[in-house]
Amino acid sequence: MAKVISKGIGEFYQHYPRVVAVITAKDKGKDNAMAAVWHTPISFSPPLYGVAISPKRFTYQLIVDSKEFGVNFLSFAEAELAASVGGSSGREIDKFYRFNITRDKPVETAVPILTAAYAAYECKLVDDRDYGDHRWLVGEIVAVHLLKEAFAPEGMLDLDKVSPTLYLGHELYLTVSPDTVKSLDREVYGKR
Amino acid sequence: MAKVISKGIGEFYQHYPRVVAVITAKDKGKDNAMAAVWHTPISFSPPLYGVAISPKRFTYQLIVDSKEFGVNFLSFAEAELAASVGGSSGREIDKFYRFNITRDKPVETAVPILTAAYAAYECKLVDDRDYGDHRWLVGEIVAVHLLKEAFAPEGMLDLDKVSPTLYLGHELYLTVSPDTVKSLDREVYGKR
Repeated sequence: MAKVISKGIGEFYQHYPRVVAVITAKDKGKDNAMAAVWHTPISFSPPLYGVAISPKRFTYQLIVDSKEFGVNFLSFAEAELAASVGGSSGREIDKFYRFNITRDKPVETAVPILTAAYAAYECKLVDDRDYGDHRWLVGEIVAVHLLKEAFAPEGMLDLDKVSPTLYLGHELYLTVSPDTVKSLDREVYGKR
Repeated sequence: MAKVISKGIGEFYQHYPRVVAVITAKDKGKDNAMAAVWHTPISFSPPLYGVAISPKRFTYQLIVDSKEFGVNFLSFAEAELAASVGGSSGREIDKFYRFNITRDKPVETAVPILTAAYAAYECKLVDDRDYGDHRWLVGEIVAVHLLKEAFAPEGMLDLDKVSPTLYLGHELYLTVSPDTVKSLDREVYGKR
């Protein structure tokens, strides 16, 4: 099959699918939530998590003012919630009220934790950096909320119990295929 | 179901699955490749891509010396290649020779582009930052290589043509389920 090489980049969707995260924040008594797919862990020790957010977002302002944010992961059955918070602004509505979103209590921060999330991180902001049209926010994970039944003893998702929500681009969501899981031990493959 | 809250973080695998990328680099005539899952786009304009890499990696040194890197995405049929480059070090072997990896020619950099990749970015290094136990490398995407047949006209992956490789943690790989794709227009869901 033919390859196309482009020096004009456009919207570069080629790195999808990516797991959806709902980023939460609270400042001056106001809770908000937004959907993000540009996020990644960046360090084990200390445990650091980064997310790219447009400075135009209301959530961005809440995070830089409060120095805290939450990262929430939703099952595929809850994907509509990601689209709802992704398509509305906390400047105009109270998303938690409008979309009837229930919260768990945080333990180390004041950020709202989504009850619907199978996992969530509470983060303390440690960096806010300018990269192009987004800000790069880095948080140290100070608490983890887990739906214990959703995870295998080794710590990875148990796909028989929960299906993660992935985003493919252009408003399309999907999940993974548990039947395709295969073990490829790098120690074995690296020594071939 | 019960939630567990932990202030001790451990290895925090809860954000998986994530798409696997093979990061490539070349310096002083030496090509190398490594597997990474901690990567994300961080800006549309300019198009910036970030990847977290341990400074112990041979690839890290090649990237900081050459100021360039490649980001390559592999179909699930090529997942073994990710495990092979992930389980070996370029300090000890020539991975391209050992694993019989074929290369496409880059156009704006000198980084090796994997022929097996359905998409690849050539990046010019614009930042190298210390975050915990990894370095955060940011590149401006200066060229995109695409297997045109693998993408829909709108730019997202055509899952009937290619299955992306995802990593679940603990040496487990999987792909997505095309049957589960659903469209959730944020403009509709945000206005409910």
